[in-house]
Amino acid sequence: MYKQLLQPDLWQMLQDEDEAGMAAFCDVLHPAATAEILDGLETEQIWRILSSCPLERRREIFEFLDLPLQVELVDRADRTEFSKLLEVMSSDDRADLLAKLDTEHVEALLPLVAAAERNDIRKLLSFPDDSAGAIMTTEYASLPEEVSVGEALDRLRKQAPERETIYYVYILGHGRRLDGVVSLRELILAKPEASVADLMNRDVISVRVDDDPEEVAQVIARYDFIAVPVVDERNQLVGIVTHDDVYDVVAEEIEEDVQRFAAIEPLEDDYLLTPLRIVAWKRGGWLMFLAFVALVTAQILQYYEGGGGPDEAGNATGWMIMFLPLVLASGGNAGSQSATLVIRSLATTDRGRFGYGRMVLREFNVGLVLGGVLAATGFGAALVWFQLTGMQSLVVGSTVYLVVLMGTVIGAIFPITFERQGMDPAIMSTPLIAALVDVMGVVIYYSVAAVAVGT
Amino acid sequence: MYKQLLQPDLWQMLQDEDEAGMAAFCDVLHPAATAEILDGLETEQIWRILSSCPLERRREIFEFLDLPLQVELVDRADRTEFSKLLEVMSSDDRADLLAKLDTEHVEALLPLVAAAERNDIRKLLSFPDDSAGAIMTTEYASLPEEVSVGEALDRLRKQAPERETIYYVYILGHGRRLDGVVSLRELILAKPEASVADLMNRDVISVRVDDDPEEVAQVIARYDFIAVPVVDERNQLVGIVTHDDVYDVVAEEIEEDVQRFAAIEPLEDDYLLTPLRIVAWKRGGWLMFLAFVALVTAQILQYYEGGGGPDEAGNATGWMIMFLPLVLASGGNAGSQSATLVIRSLATTDRGRFGYGRMVLREFNVGLVLGGVLAATGFGAALVWFQLTGMQSLVVGSTVYLVVLMGTVIGAIFPITFERQGMDPAIMSTPLIAALVDVMGVVIYYSVAAVAVGT
Repeated sequence: MYKQLLQPDLWQMLQDEDEAGMAAFCDVLHPAATAEILDGLETEQIWRILSSCPLERRREIFEFLDLPLQVELVDRADRTEFSKLLEVMSSDDRADLLAKLDTEHVEALLPLVAAAERNDIRKLLSFPDDSAGAIMTTEYASLPEEVSVGEALDRLRKQAPERETIYYVYILGHGRRLDGVVSLRELILAKPEASVADLMNRDVISVRVDDDPEEVAQVIARYDFIAVPVVDERNQLVGIVTHDDVYDVVAEEIEEDVQRFAAIEPLEDDYLLTPLRIVAWKRGGWLMFLAFVALVTAQILQYYEGGGGPDEAGNATGWMIMFLPLVLASGGNAGSQSATLVIRSLATTDRGRFGYGRMVLREFNVGLVLGGVLAATGFGAALVWFQLTGMQSLVVGSTVYLVVLMGTVIGAIFPITFERQGMDPAIMSTPLIAALVDVMGVVIYYSVAAVAVGT
Repeated sequence: MYKQLLQPDLWQMLQDEDEAGMAAFCDVLHPAATAEILDGLETEQIWRILSSCPLERRREIFEFLDLPLQVELVDRADRTEFSKLLEVMSSDDRADLLAKLDTEHVEALLPLVAAAERNDIRKLLSFPDDSAGAIMTTEYASLPEEVSVGEALDRLRKQAPERETIYYVYILGHGRRLDGVVSLRELILAKPEASVADLMNRDVISVRVDDDPEEVAQVIARYDFIAVPVVDERNQLVGIVTHDDVYDVVAEEIEEDVQRFAAIEPLEDDYLLTPLRIVAWKRGGWLMFLAFVALVTAQILQYYEGGGGPDEAGNATGWMIMFLPLVLASGGNAGSQSATLVIRSLATTDRGRFGYGRMVLREFNVGLVLGGVLAATGFGAALVWFQLTGMQSLVVGSTVYLVVLMGTVIGAIFPITFERQGMDPAIMSTPLIAALVDVMGVVIYYSVAAVAVGT
C-alpha cells in the first residue's frame, strides 16, 4: 500500500537530488516498511537514498533488506562508506552478510573496520554455517550477580542502545560464566533495593554454540522465549539467538523437506538466486536414479511382454511399451521438480524483482540440460542394455528429451497461470502435473515413432 | 534427557500418592520442560499430578501441553476443578482449547466460569477460525496518553501479573482507540518525569481482527515484533497476537502446501489425530481425478496401439498396456500421499504417544478404502468405457486394488525404516516411492493376469 503511494515521490526526489527530502523519507516510516519500498528500486538508487539517511537509521533500514539485495548493494557502495555501516550493524546480521561475500571482498573491507568490531566479525565468521554460533548475536545485556535491582536498571539504561534485546538480562560470574537470567519484567516488578542474586533464575535453559540452528529454533519455540543464551563448552556466555531468527529456520527446515519430496537435493539458497548449473545438478542426480528404476521396470515388462530386441517381430510396438514407464516417469518427475520450485518460489519471493517470464525461461533452460542427460541415458540403455536398433533407440532418446522439456515448462507455466488468475498455485499438485505430462507424453512418444520408424 | 531421569520418580510418587512430592516436581523445572515429561504419561496420571500443583503453576504447565492432550484432559477432569483452571488461562490458549471441545461440553463448563471471563470467552469464540481474532489474546498492557513515564512504570507494575507481555504498552484514547505504542525499553531509557505522549510512537503498525492469521504472522516476522496489536474497524484495540503464535502459523502454512503437493486436500488437524474417514476423503477425491486423467492416457494409448475391445485379437495383451498408466499412477499417487503424511508426521509428532506400528496400520486401512474406490473406478471404466470382458475388467480392478494397498503400505514402511536406521526419512522422495511402486506394480499386474486369464 505504502509502496504505490511513496515510490513516485521517491523517483522525483532522486531526479531532483533532494537530499533533505530523502533523509526525511528515511525517518517517516518503520524501517521495515521503508526497506520494503526500497526493494522495488534499482540498487544504485537504493544506495543513494540510504546514503542520505543518518547512519543509525541507515543501519536499521539496511538490516531489513533481503540478504541478496544487501550483497548487491555492497558491490555498488563505496568501500569506506560501507565499512562505516558495517561497524554499526548488529553482529548477527553482519556475519550473515559477510558470509555471503567473496573472501577477497571481505578481506578488503575488514581493514577499514574498527579493531573491536573486526575481532567480533572474525569470531562469528569462524563458526560453521549450520551452528548456533552462525546465527547468534553478541549484543546481549549482562550484569554481575552482586547488584541491586535499582543499580541493575541504571546499568541496563547504559547498555540498552547497543543491545539487541534488554528484555532478558544474563547474570555472569567469573570468566563470563552463565550463572543466571532475569527478565526485565521481573526487574520492573521487584523493589529497587532487592538483590538481583535473589531474583534471578539459576536454572538457565541455554544452547551450545555448536548446536544445530534447528535445535535452537525448537528450544525458542517450545519455551516461547524472546531469546536463548548461547554458551561454549565451559558454560561461558558467547551470544544470544533472538526469536526473530526462528521464523527463517523453521521455514527453511520445512522447505528442505518440500524439495526432497520432489526428488531435489535441497538448494542452499533461494531457487531464483541459485545458478542454473547448481539447480540442474541437484535435480539431475535424482532423475538419473529414478530413470534407472524405470529401466528396471522396463526389464520386467520385457520379461512379460517379450517385446524387445531388433530380431523379434512379435507385436510391432513391443519395444515402445517397455520404455513407456521411463518416458512417463522422466517427464513427470522433471515436471514435479519444476512445479515444486516454482510454487514455493511464488509463495516466498517478492515478484517485484523476478518476473514470471524469467521463471519459465529458467525452467526451459534447466529442461534443456536435464532433457539432454536423460535422453542420453535412455538412448544408451535402449541401444546397449535392451539391444534395440539405432533408430528405435533414437526414438526413445528424443522422446525422453521432448517429454522432459515439456515437463519442466508445464511445471512452471501451470502454477504461474493459476497464480495470475488469483488462484492458489499449490492446487497444481505434483501428481497432477505428472498426470498431465503423461497424457501428452504418450502423444509425443507415438508421434516421434511415427516420424522415425513409421510405426 | 529430563524425561528418562524423572519419569521413574514420578511413577513412584503416583503409586505412593505423594502429593507433596508431586507439588515439588511441578515447581522444579521450566513449565515447558515439565509439560514435556508429563506428555509421556497416561491422561489420568497427568491430571492427578497437575491437581497437586498450585493453580498458577498448573495453568503454566497445562498451557504448554499439546492441544489434543489438553482436550483429553478436559474429558478426564472434574468439571468444577477444571473451570478454575479455565478462569486463569491466557485468553488465547483458552479460546483455542474451547474451540476444540464439543458445544455441549463448552455450554456445561461456561456457567462455572466467572462472568467477566465468560464474556471474554464468548467474544473470542465468536471470531472465525481463520482470523486474527481467533489467535489473539486480550491480555495486553495499556495506558492513557496523559501520564508521565514514572507513573506509567508504576501502573505497569500493577498490570504486569495478568498480561501476556508488558514489553509493548499500547496507548489508548477515547473508547479504547489505539493512539500509540511505547516499548518498555523506551520507558526504561526515558526520564521518569518525561511524558508518555512525547515518547510514544503514533504511527502504530496493527492488524485487523478479521485479517488472516498468515498475514498477521507475516507482519510480526517482517517487523521482528514481539507482539502486534489487533484492532476492529473503528481502530479500537481488541487484543494482541504475540511472537510465539507465529511459529505455528508459519509451519501450518507450509504444511498445507506440502500436502497439496502430494494431492491431498489439506487436513485441518494433525495427521494422526484426523479420523480415518476424513483422511481417506481428503485423498480419495484427488486420486479419483488423477485416475480419470490416467484413463484419458489409456484412451490415447488405445488409439495408437489399437488394443482393446474383447473382440480384437491383435496382440494378446494390448488391453493390459492401455491400463498400465492407470495401474502405475494409482499405486504411485497413493504411495506418495502416504509417504508425505508419514514423513511430515515423523518430523513433527512426538512418537511417545503414537507408535510406528500404528502409522503403518493406519495407512493399511486407508489403503483398503482407497484401493476399493479406485478398483471400482478401474473395473467400471474397463468394462463400460473400454468394453473389455468381465474377466479382463476384473484383472484391472483387482490389480489397482493390490497396487494401491501396496503403495500405501510401502509409503509408510520405507520412511519409517529410514527413520529407525537413524537416517532422514525425507530421502524417500515421493517420486522414488512412485518408482518403486511401479516396479512391483508391473509384477502384480502380470501375475494377476496370469492367474485370471492365463496371459
